[in-house]
Amino acid sequence: MHEKRSYHIGMFDSGVGGLTVMHQLMHSLPHESVIYFGDTARIPYGSKSQETIIRYSIENAIFLLEKNIKLLVVACNTASAFALERLRKIFNIPIIGVIEPGAEKACSVTRNRRLAVLGTKGTILSGAYQREISKRLPNSFVLPIACPLFVPLVEERFLDHCSAQMIVKEYLAPIKNQGIDTILLGCTHYPLLKHLIQQEVGPEIMLVDSASTCAEMVARILQQNNMETHFGSEPNYQYHVSDDPKKFKDQVEMLFGNPIHEVHGHAFSH
Amino acid sequence: MHEKRSYHIGMFDSGVGGLTVMHQLMHSLPHESVIYFGDTARIPYGSKSQETIIRYSIENAIFLLEKNIKLLVVACNTASAFALERLRKIFNIPIIGVIEPGAEKACSVTRNRRLAVLGTKGTILSGAYQREISKRLPNSFVLPIACPLFVPLVEERFLDHCSAQMIVKEYLAPIKNQGIDTILLGCTHYPLLKHLIQQEVGPEIMLVDSASTCAEMVARILQQNNMETHFGSEPNYQYHVSDDPKKFKDQVEMLFGNPIHEVHGHAFSH
Repeated sequence: MHEKRSYHIGMFDSGVGGLTVMHQLMHSLPHESVIYFGDTARIPYGSKSQETIIRYSIENAIFLLEKNIKLLVVACNTASAFALERLRKIFNIPIIGVIEPGAEKACSVTRNRRLAVLGTKGTILSGAYQREISKRLPNSFVLPIACPLFVPLVEERFLDHCSAQMIVKEYLAPIKNQGIDTILLGCTHYPLLKHLIQQEVGPEIMLVDSASTCAEMVARILQQNNMETHFGSEPNYQYHVSDDPKKFKDQVEMLFGNPIHEVHGHAFSH
Repeated sequence: MHEKRSYHIGMFDSGVGGLTVMHQLMHSLPHESVIYFGDTARIPYGSKSQETIIRYSIENAIFLLEKNIKLLVVACNTASAFALERLRKIFNIPIIGVIEPGAEKACSVTRNRRLAVLGTKGTILSGAYQREISKRLPNSFVLPIACPLFVPLVEERFLDHCSAQMIVKEYLAPIKNQGIDTILLGCTHYPLLKHLIQQEVGPEIMLVDSASTCAEMVARILQQNNMETHFGSEPNYQYHVSDDPKKFKDQVEMLFGNPIHEVHGHAFSH
């Protein structure tokens, strides 16, 4: 176990979205090293079937496990919804998704137990958020809304375009007059649309995402398993993608503003 | 060669878009049987790198060749732009893409040699249309425009939503005051946005796509190689996809209105 402490935390997402979770982790656990894998050759996950997402998730996990990780974060809502249980059955390390932390956060924030969950088609159809919320808040009302155009809007940086506001308005129309006080952003891309969503629903509705609660959960699990890195260690961050590394680097720098130094390519051998 | 006449024509696309080409083929060559493969587990192709698209295209071609096809149509602009040459080097059957037919059509339609080409990022960056057009019309002016949000808009059927008109306006803004008389729709999804594009640019600009010219090219090649099916044969149409068959069936029926009877699933063994 002593040696394992210095291992990286592994993390995968279908693309750049999971970096919203990674940034929170870097902030909350500044000594931990992290390996990020973005499955950019097969993005998006949100519109694909459970069987396909399970297959992709297993491959991503094996890629990271071969690099000696001590804990796996599934930083993709669709993969968390569809594949988490299967991954936990197969692999012998702690595995944390983003659904449970997101549901936990939303349940701690709502005052009237009336919530909406926004996500990809896959995440919404899986019913995973709805289940996790009603486990914690039995008499709650949850309105699930699939927003399949949000990811392309973010990836194409149409965040300030008038069409983005109209698409937000269209998807959020069912929220009106439902007395909802909390909206859960159930996709790692959606925090980048936060200002547009807040503008549409007004300041009295709380928007929450999984990033901070997910980082807290990682900290707790590392501690419980005596797997925290030695205090004062210099963290190491690695980025791997299944499509072109340069494209990923450019996209990250455009979306998040902060540069990343090196991205490695990994093509799954088909 | 006699036996080969009864083989199917094989055709692949990243998803449903290639069906615009398949429908033209069914109309122009009503006795020919066709096997369609939609790589729905890895859609979209337009935002991914050349290396990845070549790998996917080779796998798709092998899947179809194992089903005994006599000719392969690459009914995807990005794959045609990135992978056609490589496929022709590897496989020993006639292979037809959609770039050459599209360029041919556009060149036959323009009167002033000033054209625009709309496509995915991959297709536009490849420069394939620009090259094929200037081969045929040496002194032409070609304005290439990448429209990465068009495919998600079509796939989510936002065709009549006000946001779609705004996104069309945004992408087509560079066309204004360029004296362009012909717009080539360089992606098999785009014919479904034709009315919005025409509305934006006005009736005096001609919109062309590759479907009809591609079908003519297939007919010519079959004839040259003595590979036409026997006159009067009852055609057989097969649909295969790499993600969930039911999703594909539903999407096709929503987008094109006509039902398809059976869709088979094929997961690439990773």
